[in-house]
Amino acid sequence: MSTASFAPALFQSFEEKSDPSHVAPRLAALRQAMKEAGVDAFLIPRADAHRGESVPASEARLAYITGFTGSAGMALVTADKAHLFIDSRYTLQAPAQTDTSLVEVHEVPSMSFDLKPYIGAGNVLAYDPWLHTPGGVRDMEERLKGHARIVPHANLVDSVWEDRPAPPVSTIEFLGHNRAGKTASDKIEEIQSSLAADGADAAVLTLPESICWLFNMRGRDVPNTPFVLGFALVPAEGAPVLYLDPAKITPELERALDGIASVAASEDLPAALEGLGKAGKSVLVDPDSAPMAVADSLSKAGARLVEKRDPVLLPKSRKNEAELAGMREAHRLDGVAMAKFLHWFDSEAPKGELTEIGIVTAFEAFRREEETCVDASFDTISGAGPNGAIVHYRVTNKTDRRLNPGELMLVDSGAQYLSGTTDITRTLSTGSTTPEQRDRYTRVLKGMIAISMARFPRGTSGAQLDILARQFLWADGVTYNHGTGHGVGAFLGVHEGPIGISPRYPLPLEAGNIISNEPGYYKAGEYGIRIENLIVVQEAEAFPGYFDFETLTLAPIDTRLIDLALLTTAERDWLNAFHARVWKEVGPLVSGAVKTWLEQAIKAI
Amino acid sequence: MSTASFAPALFQSFEEKSDPSHVAPRLAALRQAMKEAGVDAFLIPRADAHRGESVPASEARLAYITGFTGSAGMALVTADKAHLFIDSRYTLQAPAQTDTSLVEVHEVPSMSFDLKPYIGAGNVLAYDPWLHTPGGVRDMEERLKGHARIVPHANLVDSVWEDRPAPPVSTIEFLGHNRAGKTASDKIEEIQSSLAADGADAAVLTLPESICWLFNMRGRDVPNTPFVLGFALVPAEGAPVLYLDPAKITPELERALDGIASVAASEDLPAALEGLGKAGKSVLVDPDSAPMAVADSLSKAGARLVEKRDPVLLPKSRKNEAELAGMREAHRLDGVAMAKFLHWFDSEAPKGELTEIGIVTAFEAFRREEETCVDASFDTISGAGPNGAIVHYRVTNKTDRRLNPGELMLVDSGAQYLSGTTDITRTLSTGSTTPEQRDRYTRVLKGMIAISMARFPRGTSGAQLDILARQFLWADGVTYNHGTGHGVGAFLGVHEGPIGISPRYPLPLEAGNIISNEPGYYKAGEYGIRIENLIVVQEAEAFPGYFDFETLTLAPIDTRLIDLALLTTAERDWLNAFHARVWKEVGPLVSGAVKTWLEQAIKAI
Repeated sequence: MSTASFAPALFQSFEEKSDPSHVAPRLAALRQAMKEAGVDAFLIPRADAHRGESVPASEARLAYITGFTGSAGMALVTADKAHLFIDSRYTLQAPAQTDTSLVEVHEVPSMSFDLKPYIGAGNVLAYDPWLHTPGGVRDMEERLKGHARIVPHANLVDSVWEDRPAPPVSTIEFLGHNRAGKTASDKIEEIQSSLAADGADAAVLTLPESICWLFNMRGRDVPNTPFVLGFALVPAEGAPVLYLDPAKITPELERALDGIASVAASEDLPAALEGLGKAGKSVLVDPDSAPMAVADSLSKAGARLVEKRDPVLLPKSRKNEAELAGMREAHRLDGVAMAKFLHWFDSEAPKGELTEIGIVTAFEAFRREEETCVDASFDTISGAGPNGAIVHYRVTNKTDRRLNPGELMLVDSGAQYLSGTTDITRTLSTGSTTPEQRDRYTRVLKGMIAISMARFPRGTSGAQLDILARQFLWADGVTYNHGTGHGVGAFLGVHEGPIGISPRYPLPLEAGNIISNEPGYYKAGEYGIRIENLIVVQEAEAFPGYFDFETLTLAPIDTRLIDLALLTTAERDWLNAFHARVWKEVGPLVSGAVKTWLEQAIKAI
Repeated sequence: MSTASFAPALFQSFEEKSDPSHVAPRLAALRQAMKEAGVDAFLIPRADAHRGESVPASEARLAYITGFTGSAGMALVTADKAHLFIDSRYTLQAPAQTDTSLVEVHEVPSMSFDLKPYIGAGNVLAYDPWLHTPGGVRDMEERLKGHARIVPHANLVDSVWEDRPAPPVSTIEFLGHNRAGKTASDKIEEIQSSLAADGADAAVLTLPESICWLFNMRGRDVPNTPFVLGFALVPAEGAPVLYLDPAKITPELERALDGIASVAASEDLPAALEGLGKAGKSVLVDPDSAPMAVADSLSKAGARLVEKRDPVLLPKSRKNEAELAGMREAHRLDGVAMAKFLHWFDSEAPKGELTEIGIVTAFEAFRREEETCVDASFDTISGAGPNGAIVHYRVTNKTDRRLNPGELMLVDSGAQYLSGTTDITRTLSTGSTTPEQRDRYTRVLKGMIAISMARFPRGTSGAQLDILARQFLWADGVTYNHGTGHGVGAFLGVHEGPIGISPRYPLPLEAGNIISNEPGYYKAGEYGIRIENLIVVQEAEAFPGYFDFETLTLAPIDTRLIDLALLTTAERDWLNAFHARVWKEVGPLVSGAVKTWLEQAIKAI
């Protein structure tokens, strides 16, 4: 069986759609617009006003100007220079996609860095206030104080963008109570009482995950995440207003929101903000996610800004029973796809004909056998051998690599089912393995199990738990340079804040939080190891005031890579119990050779 | 052998020296002084200007007014009410020491709390600016904004204090290079270059641990810690000035500091600060430890305040090889005293005649057999049976309790040797133990061992390590309500910042940091368990970029309380290796029955 027997991947492209020859004329046009506007330097971030990981084609300004299509980055264009700032994920991709004779590529640790070296003294630096947050702008202002003047400006890329795609208008669906578990009205009431406690008369919501959760609404405006892009204004009393592209405002939509919220055109938002300001209202704005334009409109009109975290984020992170039931269902379905995929992989890999793209394509085909699988939750990381050591590797036609028997294979992927979102990583043996690989794999697994088995009192943060996953690698003087876990949405974003497991997450974990548990180990140029399950924080049975984790993911962990001598009895018991659960939940849903394979894969060790 | 055979304890008193009948006339005198000064409310914190845990008798204002002698607390006196704020350690002691018909005792979680409920609207609240920090005053001002006026004022307690003791003038010694490991000049140079980096022209040092460390100087101004009380002004360039009580300024002192620092009278400090201000200097002041009076003098005179952590704290926390050698020596000596004490305890406890005070007295006597033992590093916590569950228990004649065979005994104590400072806790079996006690003891021990065995990369904080000590207790739904470890000085304070092991310590650990490792478990009304060793952060051999711990403490851990089934092989190996080291280091220093006892106590399990 070769990859030819699978339908082409729909959820993921292996092209680097980019033509560096566009860079020169587009830069020239932008510079002309800058000159006319009296602007010495212009910033082009990758983000749109909603700060999602995916942006619609109509917002892909960074790609339009520089050719670079990565999921994070920023360009700074001056009269004679153009800089493209990227992180270490894109060290190879960025120079390949842009015209490096015109654009200097710089790797930076984060997009919050000092622009001073790139901007002339006394220059006017302009930015689009819809694409930057108050926190981000303050940070820039502090760093450039006395050096450059920072001014908001209408987007100059938009003014020169030829054939700009139309904004997305996807079908909007509303979740029934069986899926949402809580009515929009109840959610709105909960947010409204938190606003009252914060002394805010209203909140502006600008994150689609918050808006979609609040109104029990989903769409397909961007890839990978079922977002409807828009804004919302939630008053402390009375009905919220949802601001959408007028093309999305249909009688059906208004009917669905009847008695819950009114709907207005996005272009009416600034006037509404001004109205709040003129009435002297206190308005909650999240300084780390709201557009500067929102904060500016409010404060210029006289509003008092209450700078606080988006009030939806914490309630949303506490998944209710219906959301958890959906997530469990999604993981059973994903467990079926995983069993089919792993069975196929085990029979094909030894033949030495598999490629990274072939693996992605096959995996997607197995997932799409389930019709409620509507998308991938992110581009599959399919890393054969040394490519497994590139933490955020995304295979393209250029980088595609054959998987040689004996190499480790790292596959990190996830799907959006109508019932929920999945994210799973498995590292797979394809033949003989080295003692070092088994040692590292076992230490990663021990860390993953330590998190899975953790019990902890109310008030404990993910920052505190993090070391449990690292301790066994640290004992041997090695580690991994990424967080141990991120929050995951329920049929929403596969990465969502504000909780997670890493020193970056000081907030206490709460019942219903869904997070990934994914320690790893990467040996550059040789192999990568990561094992990832999703887990849910739950009240610990029989231990009042304590939490522990339920595991959502239902797919075998490759036991051929384990060095049994390194496991404690408790760890071995955990793994056997986990595999017994996989068999119990997924076994009845598969048959034939897949079932035979699964029974073998979950055998107690 | 009874406690009668030991000389009386010198380092610790079991009296609660307090006469509640003094409270009425002293409060009346203070209120008269407040009236004359136009002050509605006056604050009396326990701290002096140097914020140590011990204060000299001349600074015991809180005890003078309220009778309360605890090591933390604050009184607030108004025209018709007097409030005494204490923490949970002093719930029993405070009401016993004060006149509760005149003073209302309140338990508060920390001394940073809202005073509003205790102060009338529009009142004038006065505080002594030498006894409060800028951070503390800001916190009060924020909480009382619009409610009360907060003003600095000369101390009104001092104005009515009859027979106030003279300030302490103890002998000052200077550490030779063999003990200090670094000359004062080298240390000063190091601090001066950090000042330059912070853009400060000078720093004011007000913490005696910083001043004593910087000038390689020790004294006996307060109990338990070899402090010389004073202030210092360290300019970024040139010689520092040490400000001391004139009675301490002798020709010998000046000779010892010749070429290192000049010496001036403490009363000249304000003028010097004013001078810095008038010269427009930038002066580093630690807002969390410097007196408000220092910050005020500077800023009123025109200085720019650089609010940063006391620049000595971090360099001091990185003990050098001479300091570490001294600490190892101190722990060998303490190991000898511990062996003698534990041997005595094991033979006496079954007779049922021991008391908590008798145990403290005997322990001190064994320590004082070593002539370089100059003090206890804190009052011994000697908790028999249920008293062991009171985390900060200090036995007095009133609370003294007989230790019944079969009860657990918790002894937490430490000494100041000329070579270094010790702090050790052991929990001891006195006969039969319950399965629950052995389970809890073993979980505490597993946590202690997990910290002892930890290896971690540069940049890891004590906040991250903390969970390693708690995980086994958490697994059974229990915990301890104190930090896992605090910093320890080298012949200095037994508690010193800014590093430690608890969520409160986010700073990265560094080579040479000495910290305690002391998880515990407390069952109110029944028993307490704590096991404590001191450990040093060291570069991990063979793991570049990684740290691990060397254990300083050299005394057996009671193996009779261990549930062997709960220990992993690695944990058992650690304990056996630790005991083998105790035998190797301490065995040659003891003889006779003590040696026979020790050989038995450290037998491999």
